[in-house]
Amino acid sequence: MASDGDTRTVGKAATAEQVVTAEPPRPAEQAETGEVAGAAEQAGAAEQAAPADPAVTAAHLREALDGPWRDVRDQARPHLADERLAGDSYLDYRAARARVLDQMRLVSTFGLAERGFQREHGGTADPGGAVTGLEMLAYADLSLWVKCGVQWGLFGGAVENLGTERHAEVVRQLISLDLLGCFAMTESGHGSDVANLETTATYDPATREFVVHSPTESSRKDYIGGAAQHARMAAVFAQLITGGEGKGVHCFLVPIRDADGGDLPGVTTGDCGLKGGLPGVDNGRILFDHVRIPRENLLNRYADVDPDGTYSSEIDNPSRRFFTTLGTLVRGRISVGGAAAAGARVALSIALRYADQRRQFDDPDTGEEVLLLDYRSHQRRLLPHVARAFALSFAQNDLVRRMHLIQTGQDLAQGAQRALEKRAAGLKVAQTRHATRAIQECREACGGAGYLTENRLVTLKADTDVFTTFEGDNVVLTQLVAKDLLTSYSDEVRDLDALGWVRFAATMARDVVRESSGVRQLIQRLRDRTGDSLDEGDLSRRAVQLQLFADREDYLVRTAAHRLRARAKETNPFEAFNNAQDHILLAGEAHIERLTLEAFIEGIADIQDEEARTLAETVCDLYVYSTLEQNQAWFIMHRFMSVDRAKQVRRGVNELVDRLRPHSRILVEAMGVPEESLRSAMLNDASVHQGQ
Amino acid sequence: MASDGDTRTVGKAATAEQVVTAEPPRPAEQAETGEVAGAAEQAGAAEQAAPADPAVTAAHLREALDGPWRDVRDQARPHLADERLAGDSYLDYRAARARVLDQMRLVSTFGLAERGFQREHGGTADPGGAVTGLEMLAYADLSLWVKCGVQWGLFGGAVENLGTERHAEVVRQLISLDLLGCFAMTESGHGSDVANLETTATYDPATREFVVHSPTESSRKDYIGGAAQHARMAAVFAQLITGGEGKGVHCFLVPIRDADGGDLPGVTTGDCGLKGGLPGVDNGRILFDHVRIPRENLLNRYADVDPDGTYSSEIDNPSRRFFTTLGTLVRGRISVGGAAAAGARVALSIALRYADQRRQFDDPDTGEEVLLLDYRSHQRRLLPHVARAFALSFAQNDLVRRMHLIQTGQDLAQGAQRALEKRAAGLKVAQTRHATRAIQECREACGGAGYLTENRLVTLKADTDVFTTFEGDNVVLTQLVAKDLLTSYSDEVRDLDALGWVRFAATMARDVVRESSGVRQLIQRLRDRTGDSLDEGDLSRRAVQLQLFADREDYLVRTAAHRLRARAKETNPFEAFNNAQDHILLAGEAHIERLTLEAFIEGIADIQDEEARTLAETVCDLYVYSTLEQNQAWFIMHRFMSVDRAKQVRRGVNELVDRLRPHSRILVEAMGVPEESLRSAMLNDASVHQGQ
Repeated sequence: MASDGDTRTVGKAATAEQVVTAEPPRPAEQAETGEVAGAAEQAGAAEQAAPADPAVTAAHLREALDGPWRDVRDQARPHLADERLAGDSYLDYRAARARVLDQMRLVSTFGLAERGFQREHGGTADPGGAVTGLEMLAYADLSLWVKCGVQWGLFGGAVENLGTERHAEVVRQLISLDLLGCFAMTESGHGSDVANLETTATYDPATREFVVHSPTESSRKDYIGGAAQHARMAAVFAQLITGGEGKGVHCFLVPIRDADGGDLPGVTTGDCGLKGGLPGVDNGRILFDHVRIPRENLLNRYADVDPDGTYSSEIDNPSRRFFTTLGTLVRGRISVGGAAAAGARVALSIALRYADQRRQFDDPDTGEEVLLLDYRSHQRRLLPHVARAFALSFAQNDLVRRMHLIQTGQDLAQGAQRALEKRAAGLKVAQTRHATRAIQECREACGGAGYLTENRLVTLKADTDVFTTFEGDNVVLTQLVAKDLLTSYSDEVRDLDALGWVRFAATMARDVVRESSGVRQLIQRLRDRTGDSLDEGDLSRRAVQLQLFADREDYLVRTAAHRLRARAKETNPFEAFNNAQDHILLAGEAHIERLTLEAFIEGIADIQDEEARTLAETVCDLYVYSTLEQNQAWFIMHRFMSVDRAKQVRRGVNELVDRLRPHSRILVEAMGVPEESLRSAMLNDASVHQGQ
Repeated sequence: MASDGDTRTVGKAATAEQVVTAEPPRPAEQAETGEVAGAAEQAGAAEQAAPADPAVTAAHLREALDGPWRDVRDQARPHLADERLAGDSYLDYRAARARVLDQMRLVSTFGLAERGFQREHGGTADPGGAVTGLEMLAYADLSLWVKCGVQWGLFGGAVENLGTERHAEVVRQLISLDLLGCFAMTESGHGSDVANLETTATYDPATREFVVHSPTESSRKDYIGGAAQHARMAAVFAQLITGGEGKGVHCFLVPIRDADGGDLPGVTTGDCGLKGGLPGVDNGRILFDHVRIPRENLLNRYADVDPDGTYSSEIDNPSRRFFTTLGTLVRGRISVGGAAAAGARVALSIALRYADQRRQFDDPDTGEEVLLLDYRSHQRRLLPHVARAFALSFAQNDLVRRMHLIQTGQDLAQGAQRALEKRAAGLKVAQTRHATRAIQECREACGGAGYLTENRLVTLKADTDVFTTFEGDNVVLTQLVAKDLLTSYSDEVRDLDALGWVRFAATMARDVVRESSGVRQLIQRLRDRTGDSLDEGDLSRRAVQLQLFADREDYLVRTAAHRLRARAKETNPFEAFNNAQDHILLAGEAHIERLTLEAFIEGIADIQDEEARTLAETVCDLYVYSTLEQNQAWFIMHRFMSVDRAKQVRRGVNELVDRLRPHSRILVEAMGVPEESLRSAMLNDASVHQGQ
């Protein structure tokens, strides 16, 4: 298991350069190459030994990437071949919405939705299986994935996790789709800043009802999936007011449509209309004009209001109550990251297959046209994304496993939930950013063909584009991760407002480096396993790689904290924070990179088949080298890497893509997207290939 | 005028570090800030002096960015307010095509199309005005821009520039839209590799006809704008064969549809259907089955076939003939770059305005919600793109002016056309890549609102996405630029096949550094103007900045050449080339960056108004600093910049975005997109702003 999210090593201050040498990665016998004239470059780096049976190697790799819920994935794969679950880009958005609703009804017969709910509510209590099974739908169509995610994940998750026994019947109905719901959190004026939502739910003891109201234009619920057409009930996040006192954001069940689909009295829904993608999802708006709901419609897991209006909660601290409430919804964030990465795997599978059959320009020696994937630039634009896709698959599996252990009561450790939330936020950022970049690169790498809808890449791009935004804007989430790192998980800090946070961070700075040690243990284990000595500083050694990632994170966190402290005395808190914002974000990113590498390392350790493991090690090297290359300015500037080592990193990337290129088909199959669900016309179209 | 594209300085070998110091840019009185604890950071860098009258400053800046054809832009602006020219995302693609065709008919009454053609063909012979006027349509809708570009730019340009007097009537008809045409170059099997197109046009002396034929599946014409529905005639690029001999690629006019829109005998058209964007453009496919056309339908500007089948051309060398033919089509490539940059300006205008009215999260001191644009991270994600937009506007204006001088016979210098082609290729890459990145960033920076079609960003993203591909794939074009740099414009080299090119490049390497001197003259002029001494190495000095850009280019070109030479002896040519491909591409990119900076510098020099010029200088600094930051690993690794200087560059970017932030509205207005043509609902929607 990778080290926990709340651990960091004590980084050595800027002295690593001397000990780190970046020999090109294994196998050791490969050629040394020089970057410029005079250096003795030899043709063709040593190739990865070809697996005896590529199909067997691919199967082993796929099993590893499929992760703990591989059975769930295997069960889902045959469904994905079903044409009825595919997207249809030619439908207008109203027809697309109707089709996706039908598809969701079909999916509801798969037994997939039940996994996310407790047995006493009609579920099968397998949260890890629920997230994984849902993720597989992303291979078919992302509108379908979102639609199901809204119904069972967000709406269902809110009722299941924030409600109590009195809401059990609602859960049963939403599993079976007898009740369609939506998750009405975001407002036109407030998205990331949930604490400042403006919708109010004011308790009226006279009638024992809450009055749900939208007091301003900006309090309109907005972008809500299902709100435009299909949802009959909304899980509404609103400021609870009782006895004239605000108690913070709580969640309420508010019926919004009658059986015929008409708005209920006091409710005005609107339609967000066309979006960049996801045409099958009916995003909409809701305005409430003093809508009355029974007292029991408060989802009262963590707080309740007595008939007489008395407020009670087992969590005294309002801020902690708020974060506990939001924390139960972590599954949605985990699912978004997983689906984004799944979309990227589809795109990479398409682009890699295409590059291995499409030719352009003659090889001057042979006169034959060259496959796109034989060009260095093409290898470089695609294969590092594949390496990252591998890394993120392992990281997502690990994340889902952690979530499952917590949500099934098998992990009761203090801080586990909090660590999960941080990890989920970080991996949501990593995966959605990866999807945005990788799919864009795939589109461009397939040229004009890549732009045709029939080849699917543009749909993947359009559909996943909002993933960097919803379930937490990536910038805000990266900041959240970094803030947690900076304040070393102090609960008191999280509960502070922004002013308090900045002041606290300033006082914390001198103690921020902690001795706790997951990553150090892993590094030690890697050293023990291979007999590596860190002092040798060989960058092809996994322990050295991980140390570099950890050093970077540690250095950034420490210096960000110092910087905040230095500024806090002189300026106002917002300015102190804002001035360091780019630095703070970088610390968050470094943390996410380190977690991802750890997950990759742990994932490889579980591969029994030798050839599969060897190939996975090379992919991991490419992940490491291309990540180091992206950050090499930082590593040099902070003297963790010498200039010569940085140049070797660049050459290392070239050698690694060379070495992986012959195995591209294995890599595609390992990613596990069923061939039938690629649905990209050009892959089967002889006319895009050379005519002779 | 910026130095010509075919000049480079002799770079000093990796010794610049000692002389370059990167003081934060002017004004000199600004605060020194430290990156980490202990350094004395002061709040708030010195702000840009506020212009006395922002509207006046904005008007001056806009005039500068509007460039030589500012009258054409001013004439176009009122048309852009016309709702009839806006896009309508709710139309299905067939209706969208019909609407865009109607819009093109409306545009044909503006007198815009005529500018691109000679007077004797019914035109007004103002090629610069034609490109600029067309570009303005990009503000309204990119489908309309493409549709007009295909008709008048590509199809019209082919007939005008490759045809002769006998095709004058065709030109007249296509200007007035009595004849709708398409430009049938790309085939399913060959896009970038135009020389290897497979369509044949075989001369039959018996009937004095050419027989146009698609011999293979991959020879199908593909992605052709207009081919799916509207075009009645195609300018077809095909291998000319006469007397059993292939004469290379030539262009032929082939009628493809009758008056009712039905395919003519032997012609089979198809529909590419939906694409990532550009729904109003009817991209399609064409297969020819021995279609006979009169001998006179060969566009015979550079070559002809006598009635008896004898082939003749004033250009003996077949390769040079081919490149001459393609070279006349440079206007299309120039237009694509311009439209991409225009699309980016629309997106940046929207995102910047939104960021200046949308608030999220409280300032802990004031309790007021903070404008997005007051966050450091938000400034950093948007403002460097704005700086690049400025740079590219100047570069595009300069490019169009050069094209105009050549195409109107005012610049007859040897090599001018060739230099124009290289510059056009490079700026096409820079502008389309900029558009892809900037629009993506704008979308994300506007959160969920950015994802709604009504706010326009996703449409801009989808429509411009293919711009990195069409009119020359960006990777291929970057390589073309680099190859030209490597072979120092030797005509013989360009005419060599790939094998010959690699061999020649290898022999050229030792002479590749040339003494010719446009950039050196400019640097000297900058030094003279300000009294700068390069030895002071102050990175806030323009001359020092330009020297760094030029040094990088020079170093990359020299070392790429050396590397090719070193490898060429040992390996086969393709391998030698492929092994250096990433290096070669980097050289091309560095060249493009240098050209762009030169254009920015020259553009500023023409601004008379002091306040406008001062602001433009700050924007230019941000362009320089953010570009240096992107490439800082390279600069450090090659010892053109010390680590301390690199850290100062990072701080410099922060200080510059701080300084520009208060002037964001001026920057928006300077970019010159009329407010009425932004058409982004959220900019006028009170509900997205805070309710209180």
